[in-house]
Amino acid sequence: MRPSGRTPDALRPISIETGVNRHAEGSCLIRMGDTHVICTATVEERVPPFKRNSGQGWVTAEYGMLPRATNSRMRREAKSAQSGRTQEIQRLIGRSLRAGVDFVALGERQITIDCDVIQADGGTRCAAITGGWVAMKLAVQKLMSAGLVLSDPLGEPVSALSCGLYAGQPVADLDYAEDSEAGVDGNFVMMGAKLIEVQMSAEGSTFTREQMGQLMDLAEAGAAELARAQLQAVA
Amino acid sequence: MRPSGRTPDALRPISIETGVNRHAEGSCLIRMGDTHVICTATVEERVPPFKRNSGQGWVTAEYGMLPRATNSRMRREAKSAQSGRTQEIQRLIGRSLRAGVDFVALGERQITIDCDVIQADGGTRCAAITGGWVAMKLAVQKLMSAGLVLSDPLGEPVSALSCGLYAGQPVADLDYAEDSEAGVDGNFVMMGAKLIEVQMSAEGSTFTREQMGQLMDLAEAGAAELARAQLQAVA
Amino acid sequence: MRPSGRTPDALRPISIETGVNRHAEGSCLIRMGDTHVICTATVEERVPPFKRNSGQGWVTAEYGMLPRATNSRMRREAKSAQSGRTQEIQRLIGRSLRAGVDFVALGERQITIDCDVIQADGGTRCAAITGGWVAMKLAVQKLMSAGLVLSDPLGEPVSALSCGLYAGQPVADLDYAEDSEAGVDGNFVMMGAKLIEVQMSAEGSTFTREQMGQLMDLAEAGAAELARAQLQAVA
Amino acid sequence: MRPSGRTPDALRPISIETGVNRHAEGSCLIRMGDTHVICTATVEERVPPFKRNSGQGWVTAEYGMLPRATNSRMRREAKSAQSGRTQEIQRLIGRSLRAGVDFVALGERQITIDCDVIQADGGTRCAAITGGWVAMKLAVQKLMSAGLVLSDPLGEPVSALSCGLYAGQPVADLDYAEDSEAGVDGNFVMMGAKLIEVQMSAEGSTFTREQMGQLMDLAEAGAAELARAQLQAVA
Amino acid sequence: MRPSGRTPDALRPISIETGVNRHAEGSCLIRMGDTHVICTATVEERVPPFKRNSGQGWVTAEYGMLPRATNSRMRREAKSAQSGRTQEIQRLIGRSLRAGVDFVALGERQITIDCDVIQADGGTRCAAITGGWVAMKLAVQKLMSAGLVLSDPLGEPVSALSCGLYAGQPVADLDYAEDSEAGVDGNFVMMGAKLIEVQMSAEGSTFTREQMGQLMDLAEAGAAELARAQLQAVA
Amino acid sequence: MRPSGRTPDALRPISIETGVNRHAEGSCLIRMGDTHVICTATVEERVPPFKRNSGQGWVTAEYGMLPRATNSRMRREAKSAQSGRTQEIQRLIGRSLRAGVDFVALGERQITIDCDVIQADGGTRCAAITGGWVAMKLAVQKLMSAGLVLSDPLGEPVSALSCGLYAGQPVADLDYAEDSEAGVDGNFVMMGAKLIEVQMSAEGSTFTREQMGQLMDLAEAGAAELARAQLQAVA
Repeated sequence: MRPSGRTPDALRPISIETGVNRHAEGSCLIRMGDTHVICTATVEERVPPFKRNSGQGWVTAEYGMLPRATNSRMRREAKSAQSGRTQEIQRLIGRSLRAGVDFVALGERQITIDCDVIQADGGTRCAAITGGWVAMKLAVQKLMSAGLVLSDPLGEPVSALSCGLYAGQPVADLDYAEDSEAGVDGNFVMMGAKLIEVQMSAEGSTFTREQMGQLMDLAEAGAAELARAQLQAVA
Repeated sequence: MRPSGRTPDALRPISIETGVNRHAEGSCLIRMGDTHVICTATVEERVPPFKRNSGQGWVTAEYGMLPRATNSRMRREAKSAQSGRTQEIQRLIGRSLRAGVDFVALGERQITIDCDVIQADGGTRCAAITGGWVAMKLAVQKLMSAGLVLSDPLGEPVSALSCGLYAGQPVADLDYAEDSEAGVDGNFVMMGAKLIEVQMSAEGSTFTREQMGQLMDLAEAGAAELARAQLQAVA
Repeated sequence: MRPSGRTPDALRPISIETGVNRHAEGSCLIRMGDTHVICTATVEERVPPFKRNSGQGWVTAEYGMLPRATNSRMRREAKSAQSGRTQEIQRLIGRSLRAGVDFVALGERQITIDCDVIQADGGTRCAAITGGWVAMKLAVQKLMSAGLVLSDPLGEPVSALSCGLYAGQPVADLDYAEDSEAGVDGNFVMMGAKLIEVQMSAEGSTFTREQMGQLMDLAEAGAAELARAQLQAVA
Repeated sequence: MRPSGRTPDALRPISIETGVNRHAEGSCLIRMGDTHVICTATVEERVPPFKRNSGQGWVTAEYGMLPRATNSRMRREAKSAQSGRTQEIQRLIGRSLRAGVDFVALGERQITIDCDVIQADGGTRCAAITGGWVAMKLAVQKLMSAGLVLSDPLGEPVSALSCGLYAGQPVADLDYAEDSEAGVDGNFVMMGAKLIEVQMSAEGSTFTREQMGQLMDLAEAGAAELARAQLQAVA
Repeated sequence: MRPSGRTPDALRPISIETGVNRHAEGSCLIRMGDTHVICTATVEERVPPFKRNSGQGWVTAEYGMLPRATNSRMRREAKSAQSGRTQEIQRLIGRSLRAGVDFVALGERQITIDCDVIQADGGTRCAAITGGWVAMKLAVQKLMSAGLVLSDPLGEPVSALSCGLYAGQPVADLDYAEDSEAGVDGNFVMMGAKLIEVQMSAEGSTFTREQMGQLMDLAEAGAAELARAQLQAVA
Repeated sequence: MRPSGRTPDALRPISIETGVNRHAEGSCLIRMGDTHVICTATVEERVPPFKRNSGQGWVTAEYGMLPRATNSRMRREAKSAQSGRTQEIQRLIGRSLRAGVDFVALGERQITIDCDVIQADGGTRCAAITGGWVAMKLAVQKLMSAGLVLSDPLGEPVSALSCGLYAGQPVADLDYAEDSEAGVDGNFVMMGAKLIEVQMSAEGSTFTREQMGQLMDLAEAGAAELARAQLQAVA
């Protein structure tokens, strides 16, 4: 039995509210249950050094969490420095959102996706990827409306979900109560039926290939549901 | 004529939405026009070293801004370090919110007010003070309901407003368009008819005592309006 | 009764010794009683990026304190990093000294004012502004003697004074003994009869507009006395 | 055809030389072809705060690379700070080596595994895990010989291997030439037939579940070969 | 011929003004020609961890330079971090001043010597050692007058001098003009006829044992002259 | 009697193994008894700003130590920052290796010598200099073979040795057991019969000119022996 009473394959309620920031070229507030993330996309007409004069664009991401997004207040990262964990998360988000982007079609410009968690209840990096794609898509639509980009550089939605073994049972979309108990869990980033990233980890434990297959089944079904919400948000 | 069409003494629309964070002991989202700040109050049963074993509490504040809160994306502070400007702002917020707090009544515990700007259009530090007081008051109410604090350590609302000379004319509650033009402007923190902090500054310019008096008149009237909205939010 | 026996409006003895550094384009050692600050002005034929190719100059300031300038030894800032308080002070000094400077007349060059407190007894930022103006003026005189600047870019002296409520009474030029007791105090930066900056602050307290007026009266009289000493030093 | 001429499932020559450091409680130099990593295990009779007075031990890892371990010299990390990538790698090593450790049997002491790459040719984090387990095992043997640990807290060897799609074909134990071309690759950490960690990533690409299965087949076979070399080294 | 016209063995005019800081337990302003260093000694009734409960004291030193102490303004160290060169200098000063101190006689307390260069013309680290000893001696005298230290923990003065080959000729007490030309130079720290530290260095050059002997002859004579000035200052 | 049983003038066994790194232009592993240092030379076709367009080259060095090179594990420098001691050592290595280099013959390119201590038993900086010269020489030979450098920019080997007073007796090539006891010790860097650097230091002690002469006699003899090993390694 899951703490929330959800069935093993049930995601939390998904809500994606777009246009939440008047300055950003694309933005949304994604809510996966009590996990809330503000995602903004910033378009800049410059690219990092390794892309200069290539005619190609770039997508990068940054991630943060407000100090009281969590149950106990965390130290503000600006007061120390970005932790390695934060950097690992934002590299994952960036890699995931770059998958399937046609950088030639985008043109020599950079889109920066900022994902800031204002309330956390597990699965923040996955919500950031799912919402980040929506913000990016909205920014691309704006570029296309302005005639700056002619063919859509984005493909199917990029969606991410955490799944894991809770009380020995495979469950989808772990919330914090489950995540802090699960010895085995993973993040699955998908684009339609294809995989972009799989990160399975067992802290102080191990898992079998069969269990991994069960989690991937859950991830596939959940990602399809997320993709529908994403497409609806940008329609 | 103000860019927004407001009369010289007109504040922007004020909205204070409470209970926006399920973890924090007190929270609100304050909107002064297009300036939006999330304020959370965290209660911890410990105090800084200089207050230990004093029987007295403490109030402190931190301030941050999401990278795309502004028109051009700013560098994420966690990637470098808190700027001096940020530290100056958060010291101002902390001093302002400590004014009039009865630390003996609060007891030996600390309230940390986090003010995070999610969208900026001028006057963010003032909105942070005004909203921060609301979050602090809600946290105190929770402590009192729980019987942990017996008499209310807070007094009248602490409210803050920026006023300045725009096109030579004294105006209240500067927005970004005005603030970036104003050679003379100031922040006024008030508690009822009393002053807590006055910061008048003239970049590359000067001002007279008469002009200062006019700005204080505007600040007094505006602070009273803010105090009414604060009291309504915590009622 | 003030600890020093001074009358409420009496400043401490003022001494401004010029030419204390053989390398700097302008320099002085200002003494306000036991507060001693070395001020040097450095002229460089380059400006910050935002002024490049503008034909205009710039003035900036930095502030430091020797570890044993104070009664208890402080940690050397070079061993950690400039504190937010230090940065706040040096931004105040820079803003104050820029007031009324004709940057076109100065030409595309930068003057950096370094203010280093070698002994502290309250009011160091004010002494730094008052002495910093003298160092800047001497550097400008040198530029004019060399024919590099043709018309004087500086106007009246910029003078600064701290005033506050000590034992309920408004007093001028607070020393450390008074400053550490005063719940309400402020820094007033003036240029003749005009104001450049007012920073009134009440730690754990409040003040009225009437009290503020009394402090400004003291500040006006004191600033005039400082201006006379400054003009004498650069004559 | 692989650049090295290896068959798809062929690992590079494996060499594990133990006892390379006279100070460390356990040490080895592992060579996977031209990738060479010095691994040392340090035993300290103290544990991190979250394990104090628990009666349980802890295992942690750190990772570094000499500046000229790579083809182009890299900036020395001590001159800036550990990059996020380095931190991500050392967290992976730590998690992997903790899997299956009986912390009660280890007792309240910490083993720190330092993995320093002295020459790199791809797969350094995997070599670090494989060699790190050997160093840890040797340190544990020393503790047991000294009668400080009574029953062996370690289980089967922890072995790690990178596999990926090179020119569309699944191959095992990628070297640098392959790794820099492979759009899809992953790290597999195993303990016998069980999985500890799977990190599959597609930079600018995607992969199918079928491809993932093929890579896991290669990983399983390779890990078994590594485990034999590890057991031989500690025999 | 030396730029200053001095004979090879002539030191610059020495001046040691004591009691320049009202807060410090001992202080002086030492002038070696145009090199001016403020030295303060701070006594604290605590010692570093490695001396705790040993009944013994400790002496340590810190060194800094005001940004415009030099001909071109240097970056303020507090804005970046103490350079390695600064740390090397202050470790030298500390080692030198600890020589011959009887830490048992001093008792379990620490003396911190701060040496801040307010104007530089070569030889600042040597002036800091020479002046630092005076500040330390004055602080010790104060401790003895107060009955806190019963027998003098200090011996003969510690004096330091830089000597080098200028235009092929051995000269004493290099000033900046000489120092920037000298390919071979050294710092000699002496205590009476005994040596504490010798640092001879040849940038892009070499030297012979005979030349080294000549420089040591100069250093011996110069140190004796410095010691007389030090004893006179503390008399 | 020395702890190792060596005679006062006996060096530890010297071993210099070249070609230990397949990427570096020159490399060796130098062993002075139990002190082991990997030295690599990196040639880059660029020079620091102060050498640009001068037609001249540059040599610089960096130094590091693996955390468990020592008896007790040290904190990894990449986790904090390079200590002042480390910076002091690497400046010494760089100065030493630059002595006698003909930068015009080298041409406008930089050689960076990385010296990483993998096992320490005293005298690491001296071993780094001795081995660093070998790595540099090998890199220069490679440049000459390729016709990029026409006449050899290097002269005689640069060799370094620590000598000190152990139990009152002058001894050569101190190991850790001796070094931690010796109150007086020094590092001598030589090039044939010439001196490049002498650093004699007495922690809490003093020494005479006669003792210094005895140590220099030992250093001269030892350096000659090191030079023979260096020439053999690069033959």
